[in-house]
Amino acid sequence: MTIYLDNAATSHPKPEAVYLAADQTLRELGASPGRGSYRAAIDASRLLFETRLAAAKLFGISDSSRIVFTASATESLNLALLGLLNPGDRVVTTTMEHNAVLRPLEQLRRNGVEVIKASANADGFVEPAKLKNACTRETRLLVIGHCSNVSGTRQAVEEIGPWCRQQGILLLVDGAQSAGLFDLDVEAMAIDLLAVPGHKGLFGPPGTGLLYVRDGLQLRPLMVGGTGGDSTLPLPPEQLPEGLESGTANTPGLAGLKAGIEFLLETGLDTIRRHELALVKILRRELSSITGLCVHGAATMDRQGAALSFTITGQDPAAIAFALDRDYDICTRAGLHCAPEAHRSLGTFPQGTVRISPGWFNTERDIETLLAALIDQVGQP
Amino acid sequence: MTIYLDNAATSHPKPEAVYLAADQTLRELGASPGRGSYRAAIDASRLLFETRLAAAKLFGISDSSRIVFTASATESLNLALLGLLNPGDRVVTTTMEHNAVLRPLEQLRRNGVEVIKASANADGFVEPAKLKNACTRETRLLVIGHCSNVSGTRQAVEEIGPWCRQQGILLLVDGAQSAGLFDLDVEAMAIDLLAVPGHKGLFGPPGTGLLYVRDGLQLRPLMVGGTGGDSTLPLPPEQLPEGLESGTANTPGLAGLKAGIEFLLETGLDTIRRHELALVKILRRELSSITGLCVHGAATMDRQGAALSFTITGQDPAAIAFALDRDYDICTRAGLHCAPEAHRSLGTFPQGTVRISPGWFNTERDIETLLAALIDQVGQP
Repeated sequence: MTIYLDNAATSHPKPEAVYLAADQTLRELGASPGRGSYRAAIDASRLLFETRLAAAKLFGISDSSRIVFTASATESLNLALLGLLNPGDRVVTTTMEHNAVLRPLEQLRRNGVEVIKASANADGFVEPAKLKNACTRETRLLVIGHCSNVSGTRQAVEEIGPWCRQQGILLLVDGAQSAGLFDLDVEAMAIDLLAVPGHKGLFGPPGTGLLYVRDGLQLRPLMVGGTGGDSTLPLPPEQLPEGLESGTANTPGLAGLKAGIEFLLETGLDTIRRHELALVKILRRELSSITGLCVHGAATMDRQGAALSFTITGQDPAAIAFALDRDYDICTRAGLHCAPEAHRSLGTFPQGTVRISPGWFNTERDIETLLAALIDQVGQP
Repeated sequence: MTIYLDNAATSHPKPEAVYLAADQTLRELGASPGRGSYRAAIDASRLLFETRLAAAKLFGISDSSRIVFTASATESLNLALLGLLNPGDRVVTTTMEHNAVLRPLEQLRRNGVEVIKASANADGFVEPAKLKNACTRETRLLVIGHCSNVSGTRQAVEEIGPWCRQQGILLLVDGAQSAGLFDLDVEAMAIDLLAVPGHKGLFGPPGTGLLYVRDGLQLRPLMVGGTGGDSTLPLPPEQLPEGLESGTANTPGLAGLKAGIEFLLETGLDTIRRHELALVKILRRELSSITGLCVHGAATMDRQGAALSFTITGQDPAAIAFALDRDYDICTRAGLHCAPEAHRSLGTFPQGTVRISPGWFNTERDIETLLAALIDQVGQP
């Protein structure tokens, strides 16, 4: 049996209800939401509305129309960054970000946006004081990944958010590695923009994502086109979600996402977090007992998310991951994980790391099998 | 039994193989293509490659890496237009275009791109001479929808394409209503950019689309982020498809698209076209025999695609479509169909039309039932 430990890339497997909802919608719902007045088209509109409501409940969003569906967190982050910032704007971010943040920022930098990167400690944590010091009166936006996709380190968004709000600085949170695992309440954390993939912690299918846009914020769309209503306007209407959702929606994907979020809400975030972090705790303890192996995670468990990395002195991470797959049927991921600067902070550039990211459906047994395989491979202890 | 006649919005049902492929991939393939070295990730990369190959075969594309996957034809069209054009460029298009073309062009127009619209006849056809006259030595791009999504009228791309190539004018074709129905050979028709939805004539799931970009053309991406490899580059690599495909791919959707295109290739475009156009021919003949009903389609069958519209003097199109759904369980679509200017050409602005768009799975019986329902409703003949 394959052991899948790459949930930071996409959660696998999904709850059965997700498969059933996606399949049923693809089979039965031959309609584009908002694109017809017959009943199937109205059912499709209702499905999208219910998916928005479920996501709103999860993130403490009072007005679900402020949730825009996208095809990925990458699209959500691009929409937020490219849709908000103008030449001359000043942005603060961290060295722990994924290329889905770094690359849009690099593009903006070339167009006259000033980008300041607060650097992380070797455990991946960015001191809140460092972020605050990087901000000036001219800073328009702070962008931060809640949990690192390399080390799993969880940043202090709960502290940074309210501080930003007080300073009049907008806050964009990349929830790619934390949504569905840690509480992400847009009100309590004073989040203005929240980008989330559908297919990781929310258990939806690939091809889904969302962006929360706080009321009053107006973004330029990444793309424009048909929105169902208001066809005679030369550009899409400004109101959300239509204003930022042009083209036919991924209804089967969103039906799966709705089922995924419902599974999360029924199971309980606490229960999921307890389970996943228990597995990570074992990993941290047992991995560090292997001689020559170095764990790259948060300093302590209370800042640790569900992914962590390791390196073994003198061994190529790619070779380790390859052997784990070929000889033990264990899926992990090696390399830079699309976050090159994080590795400079962690001291693992340019060779990268092997990343282990357990999920809800992994068991202690899976972790024991991985550890045994590693010891077998390394010949220790 | 519901009779679905809105295939111009999305094809329904899909071939059984499409449902099976999407479901199987979502259930079994927990991996992001290009994002890991374990076998499932390699399977995911292979799946995308095979989907590209199938699409390349369908459109006569010799190098499948020039096909970029998107979430919709809307995204494909935005990527082509916003990624290519610069202030000062001159574009020629037609009044028959969908808002997925008109709105990006309007946005570009406001940023200094000159947009010229050649107007269609009352049958939706744009005379090639009119298009040629609208072009000057400064024209950079001609954008044209192959078949109208309102009247089904098929434009003379086979004539315009080679002429544009000769003049050094780039050609972008919106194949939303013709891909999977009419031959679209990028070489024979001299198409530089071809935007196609996955979920209409290609029988794939919603949430899929593609853009063909001729070798040598360099587009700016709509969004940037992780591309799997080349993580240390500050921006995505220029080579395709990676350069224009950031973020996690919709693997279940693309597996479904592959199955859809394979169904098309096995069944044969000719067979599908013969069947769909036979139904449209009956529709054209029988609808026009109803007093007070006006058909809005091509002048003759040899310019007619698989969608057509009608209006009935003194009746609201929305009320007709509503009654067809409620009283006869027939799905059609009323309104402007996101193509407001087309209705000015057809003389149906602002009230719009009722659109009938049969697909491969419709039967003559479906058409007879629709016609009987309409006669019943109108009280004729």
